Amino acid sequence: MNPSVQAISGSLIREIAAKRTATSIDLGLGEPSLPPSMKYLLAALRATERQGLKYTLNAGDLELRAAIGAHYGYPGLDSAESVCVMTGSQEGVYVTIKTLLDPARDELLLVEPAFPAYLKMSRLEGVTARTVAMSEVDDFAFDAQRILAAVSDRTRLIVVCSPCNPTARVITRAVVDEIGDALLRRAGQPVYVLHDEIYREQTYVEGAGHFGATYAHTIVTNSLSKSNALTGLRLGWTLAPRPIADALVKTHAWVTSCASTFAQRVALAIFETPGALQEHAAWYREQSSAILGLLGASGLRYVAPEGAFYVCVALPQGLKSLQAAHELADRFDVIAIPGIAFGDCFEGWLRLSWVAPIDQVREGVSRIAEFCAAAATPAPTI
Amino acid sequence: MNPSVQAISGSLIREIAAKRTATSIDLGLGEPSLPPSMKYLLAALRATERQGLKYTLNAGDLELRAAIGAHYGYPGLDSAESVCVMTGSQEGVYVTIKTLLDPARDELLLVEPAFPAYLKMSRLEGVTARTVAMSEVDDFAFDAQRILAAVSDRTRLIVVCSPCNPTARVITRAVVDEIGDALLRRAGQPVYVLHDEIYREQTYVEGAGHFGATYAHTIVTNSLSKSNALTGLRLGWTLAPRPIADALVKTHAWVTSCASTFAQRVALAIFETPGALQEHAAWYREQSSAILGLLGASGLRYVAPEGAFYVCVALPQGLKSLQAAHELADRFDVIAIPGIAFGDCFEGWLRLSWVAPIDQVREGVSRIAEFCAAAATPAPTI
Repeated sequence: MNPSVQAISGSLIREIAAKRTATSIDLGLGEPSLPPSMKYLLAALRATERQGLKYTLNAGDLELRAAIGAHYGYPGLDSAESVCVMTGSQEGVYVTIKTLLDPARDELLLVEPAFPAYLKMSRLEGVTARTVAMSEVDDFAFDAQRILAAVSDRTRLIVVCSPCNPTARVITRAVVDEIGDALLRRAGQPVYVLHDEIYREQTYVEGAGHFGATYAHTIVTNSLSKSNALTGLRLGWTLAPRPIADALVKTHAWVTSCASTFAQRVALAIFETPGALQEHAAWYREQSSAILGLLGASGLRYVAPEGAFYVCVALPQGLKSLQAAHELADRFDVIAIPGIAFGDCFEGWLRLSWVAPIDQVREGVSRIAEFCAAAATPAPTI
Repeated sequence: MNPSVQAISGSLIREIAAKRTATSIDLGLGEPSLPPSMKYLLAALRATERQGLKYTLNAGDLELRAAIGAHYGYPGLDSAESVCVMTGSQEGVYVTIKTLLDPARDELLLVEPAFPAYLKMSRLEGVTARTVAMSEVDDFAFDAQRILAAVSDRTRLIVVCSPCNPTARVITRAVVDEIGDALLRRAGQPVYVLHDEIYREQTYVEGAGHFGATYAHTIVTNSLSKSNALTGLRLGWTLAPRPIADALVKTHAWVTSCASTFAQRVALAIFETPGALQEHAAWYREQSSAILGLLGASGLRYVAPEGAFYVCVALPQGLKSLQAAHELADRFDVIAIPGIAFGDCFEGWLRLSWVAPIDQVREGVSRIAEFCAAAATPAPTI
């Protein structure tokens, strides 16, 4: 067997998520709990009645690609030719890492805390990944100086997920510009930024930065999974400058051939409907306010969510996050994701999702506060 | 960029298919022209109304996997745990090649003429692929002795596509057993066979062999694309013995996460409906008989189709297939795929698909016969 496959460890997120029982309060979920709008699926069904369900071009349906490119309007990434429709943004990220990096020479730079898939994919491809940790003191805010200081002559791609899974922090325009300007001043081959925008429609602060808007060497990945509660549709895309875009299509063609034609029709119906990408945004905004209220009253240390649907809370000093997550599952029937899954710098933290009904989130936070209070108090010496 | 991506050449099939005009007779198509049954899509839509569209397990929905495993009933490949649901059989083949072979050591053996994706995928993964040519004299029948003679100490996987794209030949049980028995007698690590069964429901002869039925080291890939005219659904699967199956799921999880939940519901509706996989089989059988009649009257040399929906015809001695395909497109408005796309041993042949209405196929064959007759006659010397 391929030793790169064998060497990849299992998912800590799934290890904990597997402890879920019928009664569990599940704050581990990484997917929306809202139902999707059926009207877009019905539109796709009607189109399928008329036209069957044949392959599209490898890169995806031309009309959809034009609509996606135009919707975001990032300079140089706004034409159909810059768009490749993918089987979820997961395939988009995978194909980007595989295509852009020469395993013999190039390195990936991950801004941590980071979604673990980036590191696993780079290992699968034999690509060296370096990490740069954002600062706990600064509540893991995106820090241009830290990121830039970690860029080496071998760095060809920096992965930034904003709004961030797990921290729920959002990169600002100022930080995007500081990074972009500095990278442009570097001599030699361009350093690309992969901006994973999957939580773009869940942004609760002003001044969010988008690399695609100002930095020429940007590749964007996104999908309908989080914006429209369509994780199971597996429909995402990459935006990339040419000729990178053409190379992504080539790799994608051999990995999965083309994205689902049915899913592409759902996506076209969404992109043709003004406001459809934001149809759940108000609910997330309200829920995020409620969460802030809950956490303020909990006594827990937390990072205020600026986007996505997570909130991260600090464990008492010295408590390991994996052990804490197991104890919370076993003794408190609460599922929470250990910070160590997102990098060493996130040890001592838990990622909670707050897509469950607010009463459940409240009860979950209350049990975690109870657990933390007990853990912080030394057991009495008898 | 990754040099393995850059080194892969474009698709000859797409180069010719791109010449299609509004008036073309298209015998290049590799997908069914029948409409799919809407009832399975409606069943999936109703389930989505009730349950939304969330992720499934990486390996796929447990009920679907159990149904797939049980349907084929291959010993050791018949439980849910041996099945991984994929984004089309394309991802199934890709993940199998990526997972099973160590690029530093292992080799793939391709039985040619072969669908070009296998070779492209192995190049993408840096895996050495060797090829073994079936004999033109024998109408490219699967030949156990030729295949076995090509197995080296480094061969870890043999790819067999039967019914075959492009030759439309079907491997027999006797040949499967001869290969399987000989491979079992070899010392050392097992040699796996990847049996690509995508045209399984288009089989027109008795005695078809299936490696999964008798050879323990088999991985099967298949999908709903050809059986149910659902190429655009992107729903396929692998069947593999454990622990190979577990490793395939691991790779698949990082490449695409999971197959479309909607597509999996369509598949479940199909596997729960007796005979649904064969719903188009009678049409293909009738069409294949009609094709045999056409070709017999055409004066062309051809390989009688035993399966799939192709027929291969020989060009006049010395005529290159790529040049012939271009001339047919440019001067006769007929799209046919050059044999060279499927390996050197298939130079001098064309692959025709016969999923178009029979009158169109008749006209296309007639024009090809005219072209071949003209090409075979030396121009008069003035």
